[in-house]
Amino acid sequence: MQISAEFLRDIALHAARESLPRFRQSGEVHNKLSSGFDPVTEADRETERVIRRLINDRFPEHGILGEEHGGENLSSQHVWIIDPIDGTRAFISGLPTWGTLVGLTRDGDAIAGIMSQPFTRELYMADGKTALYEGPGDDRVLTTSNTVRLEDATLFTTSPALYENDQRQNFDRLESMVKLSRYGVDCYAFAMVAAGYADLVVEPDLQPYDIVALIPIIEQAGGVVTDWRGEPAEKGGTIVAAATAKLHEAALTVLQQ
Amino acid sequence: MQISAEFLRDIALHAARESLPRFRQSGEVHNKLSSGFDPVTEADRETERVIRRLINDRFPEHGILGEEHGGENLSSQHVWIIDPIDGTRAFISGLPTWGTLVGLTRDGDAIAGIMSQPFTRELYMADGKTALYEGPGDDRVLTTSNTVRLEDATLFTTSPALYENDQRQNFDRLESMVKLSRYGVDCYAFAMVAAGYADLVVEPDLQPYDIVALIPIIEQAGGVVTDWRGEPAEKGGTIVAAATAKLHEAALTVLQQ
Repeated sequence: MQISAEFLRDIALHAARESLPRFRQSGEVHNKLSSGFDPVTEADRETERVIRRLINDRFPEHGILGEEHGGENLSSQHVWIIDPIDGTRAFISGLPTWGTLVGLTRDGDAIAGIMSQPFTRELYMADGKTALYEGPGDDRVLTTSNTVRLEDATLFTTSPALYENDQRQNFDRLESMVKLSRYGVDCYAFAMVAAGYADLVVEPDLQPYDIVALIPIIEQAGGVVTDWRGEPAEKGGTIVAAATAKLHEAALTVLQQ
Repeated sequence: MQISAEFLRDIALHAARESLPRFRQSGEVHNKLSSGFDPVTEADRETERVIRRLINDRFPEHGILGEEHGGENLSSQHVWIIDPIDGTRAFISGLPTWGTLVGLTRDGDAIAGIMSQPFTRELYMADGKTALYEGPGDDRVLTTSNTVRLEDATLFTTSPALYENDQRQNFDRLESMVKLSRYGVDCYAFAMVAAGYADLVVEPDLQPYDIVALIPIIEQAGGVVTDWRGEPAEKGGTIVAAATAKLHEAALTVLQQ
């Protein structure tokens, strides 16, 4: 199944109308946790609402799973997975590195998706065949880099502090082997791999809605995304996304030691 | 001395003509270090060149100190301090969190400056009296937040791994006391404090060209910037920038333990 780029663009446009006017405004931030801090804003809730409405109107037989408003019709062959604001911490800190993630699965496999950043006016998308960029600079087909060796690779992760025990040791070893590592940019890092500017993203403890939309964007740009055991990434967990199959294998080898 | 906003805008405009066409292009990246990786690109060099030319034409009696092309006329009362691309690692990774920093000192005190991010079309500037934002959303006067307690504060740093020994322990303690911490965005973090979206930035081992431009932007927006001992920040070092004097004092107390 190929999803029209027009429908994906339409999702991004309607989502931006809810998210962008609330970005850098002093809206209320709610904490989802009784201990700790897991922020959610009206922007998350309203953005997901409008995306669900669009999908329900166009594909009433499809299921939907969203971070903020839960699941409906999840036994359908096609299920849309939504994170209305991936990077809510960036969002509430004024940083333009959050994104709206919407992915489509068929029988559990991610086949199409978008990552939209409306402040920078960037849209990264995969329609089932091709990964595309639309935004400042030329619109173009996305292609991952051809980096195959860890020592030539740029690595992203949100924070090394998110890894526990053995995973932390393995991550630290991986970090010591790459050319350059960067922290802190959530979904934006995966878009940079799809676009060929970075080579590797490792993220621990992702939920399906954090990653499903990004899988087809990276895969259809030529990259590889799995969990750290090499299993499909659609269920979340510790995720490894790489520009090439060789680089992906090299990273998994270090992470599995 | 007040510098016209027009001249500051002119610097940003000319700098963008050199930096932006080279962003996300496969330009050559040179390594400044024989061991380790300290990247510099043609974008750094050419952007600094055009900024120096503008300043030389307009203020031939002023001194200039730039990251890439060194110092000239440094005994002048007025000296401009330039980091053409602050966040070169972000730049070469495709992230829009780098910025062009140009600051003006009089007798060693930072009095005016810009942080320009041409991909997002954002300009943060201080003309000697007022800190201003021009870019997407409404142009406006910048004002820091009124956050005074660490437990209400959002903290930025590029990476905790950059702190050594005691400093690392003190930084970790500070991080454990704030509401939210974020890694990895170089000069952009300081702009977020000036704009009131974040409250606190701590960065170790900055050079003068990493911070001078940002001092007047934060100060003229109502914030406080010093080194970790409470001394003027113009000479660089470990820098603490805070939205309010009280928050700044609270952070210094933890960092000095």
